[in-house]
Amino acid sequence: MKKGVLYMIPSPIAAGAETDALTERVREVLGRLDHFIAEDVRTVRRFISKAATGRDIGTLCFAELNEHTRPEELEVLIAPLLAGQDAGMVSEAGLPGIADPGADLVLLCHRHGIRVVPLSGPSSLLMALMASGLNGQSFAFNGYLPVKPPERAKAIRRLEQRASTERQSQIFIETPYRNVRVLEDVMSACRAGTLLTVAADISGPAEFIRTMTVGEWRKAPAPPIHKVPAVFVIL
Amino acid sequence: MKKGVLYMIPSPIAAGAETDALTERVREVLGRLDHFIAEDVRTVRRFISKAATGRDIGTLCFAELNEHTRPEELEVLIAPLLAGQDAGMVSEAGLPGIADPGADLVLLCHRHGIRVVPLSGPSSLLMALMASGLNGQSFAFNGYLPVKPPERAKAIRRLEQRASTERQSQIFIETPYRNVRVLEDVMSACRAGTLLTVAADISGPAEFIRTMTVGEWRKAPAPPIHKVPAVFVIL
Repeated sequence: MKKGVLYMIPSPIAAGAETDALTERVREVLGRLDHFIAEDVRTVRRFISKAATGRDIGTLCFAELNEHTRPEELEVLIAPLLAGQDAGMVSEAGLPGIADPGADLVLLCHRHGIRVVPLSGPSSLLMALMASGLNGQSFAFNGYLPVKPPERAKAIRRLEQRASTERQSQIFIETPYRNVRVLEDVMSACRAGTLLTVAADISGPAEFIRTMTVGEWRKAPAPPIHKVPAVFVIL
Repeated sequence: MKKGVLYMIPSPIAAGAETDALTERVREVLGRLDHFIAEDVRTVRRFISKAATGRDIGTLCFAELNEHTRPEELEVLIAPLLAGQDAGMVSEAGLPGIADPGADLVLLCHRHGIRVVPLSGPSSLLMALMASGLNGQSFAFNGYLPVKPPERAKAIRRLEQRASTERQSQIFIETPYRNVRVLEDVMSACRAGTLLTVAADISGPAEFIRTMTVGEWRKAPAPPIHKVPAVFVIL
C-alpha cells in the first residue's frame, strides 16, 4: 500500500506574526490534512483556526508528541502514515524537529520508507543569527544550558572557547524566566572582547536584537528579556 | 538624524517555490524599500518582479555585496542607512547572512546603532535538518568542506567524531557539481553505523530527502544529487 507523507509544518513564533508561518504552501497543506502530530494540541488548533482553511476542526485527529512521549508510543503515532494517510507535525512554535523532541518520530518514518516533506517557516534561531552579524558560515546550536550555576558557567566558557578557536558562532536558548540570570552568567564568564548577540521577541512587537562586545554589554542598560523568548549568540 | 532599518530579506531556494519566501511581511517590506544590498543584483530584480509589488524596478537602487566586496566598501554600502533610508539585504537564495558573506555588513550596522530586522523565509539547512530525523536539539553547520581529497576525508572524519561524541548533528554543503564526489567521500570515510541524510532540491520538483546509515547508503542506488543543490547531515 502507498504510504502517507509526513509534512513538517512551521507555526508562529510571536503573537501578531502568524502570517510568517502561513505561506501559500502551508495554507494549502493545512487545508487538506486530517491527521496532526502536535507538541501541544491546543496551540495547533488555534493556529489552524487562524489559518482559516475552512476545515471543521472537530473532524480532525490530533495526537500529542512531546518530551513525555515514550519511544514505544511512536509506532502508534505513525500508524495513519503507514495506512496511507498524510499527516502534519507541528511544534509549539517555529520549526518542528528543531529544538524540540520531534526528531525521533521523523527518523522512524525514514526507517519505514515514509516520505518526509519540510515546509518553510520562521526559525527564531536563524532569524537571531542572520540579524546578529556573527558568523553565519559556521555556527552551532547548543540547546539549553545546564541549570546549575557552576556547570552553566563552565558550559558558557566552553562555548566561548569553541567560538574563538573555530570562529564558529555559538547559539543557545533558555526558558524565558531564566534569561536575565543567563545573561548575567555570560557577562561574568566571558572575556570583554567576545561578541554577544541578545535577540528577544523576534518578529514580535517588542523585538530587540543587539550585538555588542561583552565589555560593552556590561556598561549598557539591561536588555528587555525578562520572561520574553530570547536567543543568545556568542563569537 | 534617525537612522534607517536594515531588513534581512529571504529569497526563494527552488524554482516553483517562490511563494515560500513571499510572506505577507516580505511583500510589504519589498513594496516600500528603495535600497537593496544584493549578493547578486539580477536575482534580486527577478525576485522583486515575481513579488509583483507594483514598484518600478528602474527606480530602485541596488548595491552588490558578495565574496569580492572589500571591507572598506562596507562603509559605502551603509551610507543610505546612516542617512535615514531603510534598506534590504537579499542573498542569492535563502536567508541572507547565513552561509553567505553578508554578516560583516550586519555587524557594522550594529556598531553604528542601525537596527537590523530579520524576516522569516526558507532555509535549506534547517529544512534538511527538520526532515532528517537527526538531532535538532544540538547541531552545527560547517559550511563547505575542503576541496582537496585528503583534507576533505580528514574533515569528514572530524565531523563524524564530533557528531558521535557530542550527539551533535553535523550539517555541510558543497557546490552542486561536487556533490557526487563528496557523497562518495562520506561513504568511504564514515563508519557503517553513522546516520547520513542527503537532502537535494529542497522544496523543488525533484525534492529528495532520505536518512539511512552509511552502511545502507553503500548498498542503495545513488541519490539524484548531481548538479542539484544539496545538504548533507551526519550523526
